[in-house]
Amino acid sequence: MDRRSFLKTSAVGGSAAAATGLAAPAYAQGKRTLTMVTSVPDGFAVFDDAAVFLSEAITEMTDGQLTIDKRPAGSLVGAFEVFDAVTAGQADMYHSADYYFGGQHPGYYFFTAVPFGGTAQEMINWYLHGGGADLHDQLGQIFGLKSFLAGNTGMQPGGWFNKEINSADDLNGLKFRMPGLGGRALAIAGASVQNVPGGEIYQALSSGAIDGAEWIGPLADERMGLQEVCEYYYTAGFHEPGSALSTAMNRDVWDSLSPAHQGIVEKAAMATHHWNLAQSNANNGAALQRLQSGGTKLMSFPDDVWDAFGTASSKALDEYMDDSLYADIRESFEKSMRASASWATVSDSAYTAQRNRVLGG
Amino acid sequence: MDRRSFLKTSAVGGSAAAATGLAAPAYAQGKRTLTMVTSVPDGFAVFDDAAVFLSEAITEMTDGQLTIDKRPAGSLVGAFEVFDAVTAGQADMYHSADYYFGGQHPGYYFFTAVPFGGTAQEMINWYLHGGGADLHDQLGQIFGLKSFLAGNTGMQPGGWFNKEINSADDLNGLKFRMPGLGGRALAIAGASVQNVPGGEIYQALSSGAIDGAEWIGPLADERMGLQEVCEYYYTAGFHEPGSALSTAMNRDVWDSLSPAHQGIVEKAAMATHHWNLAQSNANNGAALQRLQSGGTKLMSFPDDVWDAFGTASSKALDEYMDDSLYADIRESFEKSMRASASWATVSDSAYTAQRNRVLGG
Repeated sequence: MDRRSFLKTSAVGGSAAAATGLAAPAYAQGKRTLTMVTSVPDGFAVFDDAAVFLSEAITEMTDGQLTIDKRPAGSLVGAFEVFDAVTAGQADMYHSADYYFGGQHPGYYFFTAVPFGGTAQEMINWYLHGGGADLHDQLGQIFGLKSFLAGNTGMQPGGWFNKEINSADDLNGLKFRMPGLGGRALAIAGASVQNVPGGEIYQALSSGAIDGAEWIGPLADERMGLQEVCEYYYTAGFHEPGSALSTAMNRDVWDSLSPAHQGIVEKAAMATHHWNLAQSNANNGAALQRLQSGGTKLMSFPDDVWDAFGTASSKALDEYMDDSLYADIRESFEKSMRASASWATVSDSAYTAQRNRVLGG
Repeated sequence: MDRRSFLKTSAVGGSAAAATGLAAPAYAQGKRTLTMVTSVPDGFAVFDDAAVFLSEAITEMTDGQLTIDKRPAGSLVGAFEVFDAVTAGQADMYHSADYYFGGQHPGYYFFTAVPFGGTAQEMINWYLHGGGADLHDQLGQIFGLKSFLAGNTGMQPGGWFNKEINSADDLNGLKFRMPGLGGRALAIAGASVQNVPGGEIYQALSSGAIDGAEWIGPLADERMGLQEVCEYYYTAGFHEPGSALSTAMNRDVWDSLSPAHQGIVEKAAMATHHWNLAQSNANNGAALQRLQSGGTKLMSFPDDVWDAFGTASSKALDEYMDDSLYADIRESFEKSMRASASWATVSDSAYTAQRNRVLGG
């Protein structure tokens, strides 16, 4: 494994500032550009917005000592090759969704979303206060990475279809785009599942290569134009109830950063998760209304389809239980999720039900 | 208004580092200690935890260039005097809950929580993506403050009682601790409402000065020992469905910070909100179980009490509508909340209901 760093180092400004005692950046002699590869095209709503927010926060807080050279999918490496590129030192860091890397280790599925898993809030409860971050770090050590959650799309809708799903039988043979363990569960339920990078979904639907797809949510899906190629939009989905995005840095690069810059990267990632989750949750309602006004038919899966999703998800989650780290991650995640859910039921859910009842909302 | 800053400036280390060109902090010649006054005692769960997280994040990311001297309630000024202290320049910044300062301007109520208002997620959706932060800044300009949300307790329970609340009549004359517009609504509903600083609630209940109180939630309330002095714990409450904490800096102090340090304070506040909300949501479930095991009786308000809360809350929210900035803030908040809620209903709520049904959770 070649962990050679592609740091670009420049001494410009550093010694001059030190000699004159001007208020110049202290790490100027180590001014760096970090190459960050991503899994989506530049400008993709929500997903790339998180990568931009993260990059700008790091540059701002380091006073330009760390500049991020963001390279979209297909520029330096392909959408799903970013993990290996950073592990190998071909790039300094990536911004992506870690469930794309379940092939490298199935534990990564839990660091985006798993079917019938946690909402975005339950996910971050686990990550920050239930041991999730430590387990993410254990995975990273295997591959020479230092990882942080850095974005969240919130609950992802069931997706876009060109036929109604009235029973589990309607899933049979359906060529559908869905990544991660959700995709595996959908395959167990009978669909022909493919993983297509975000930048290629519209084309795959247009050409008929796939029958349907899920992407992110109303705001991002509308921007991608999925309403032009699909008629039905199923709102709540089983597969990604709160999908985290991640950043991971080559561990040699990470170790070369000052403690202050390490703190900045970590807190920038937290702020990105916070900002990005609110972005979807603030804007999805209006986007969904626009889609509906434009003719998209909003649908909900019937209960027996949810039951089929449940059975298939349980099977999908069980397939990797012979890997002890996967089993540890799953146990930690599910324990935290149950505790979070018990509180959510008597707090936010109970309150919202009363607010709706009293205000008629 | 005296906005004199109490910045403590030290030149130690600055010129030496510049002369030798060592990797020393660039702003060392302006190394500062900022005095931050808070509204709770040191070590108070959740509330002070947020202040500690914020302080440590700022110090870490500025490489010690900005150190926070946190002064708990009653040390430099009283719990509810922190706003005026920072406005006057007696302290550099505060960490508190802005609804304590509704007397300075009623618009501040919206920057903690209002009755029948938003959940924590709906709150931050508005703040970061619905115009809330700009309105917070408009308020701050009136008082010479630069404000950020910096913490969130999540949904606050209805509170601690020593008698059952079976109808709205049971609220009559009840001496109850509740701040903000929620407290005003409770007064309209017939209670005798007082605002008591967090550090004095336990004593006020023990002495019989008050009959009941709400504080934060299971984790913080248990730490305060409220289960020792009250028998009934009403879980979901109407008054603070997602209470944000805030930090505000004297604007002259803010203007004197470098753009990088301003960015660090802003992102540290975001990270604090994110971390703090997850802290409560991750730990409240287990704390509630411990309380119940210890003999606390968990209760829910009946529908007609919720109805009374609704009527009173509407009246409380209407009382300040002759203030145009208050009216603007309310309109902006409620518009964003409606949009957020419309999405939450078809996403997180619909998903969670199915997860509970399928998994029997």
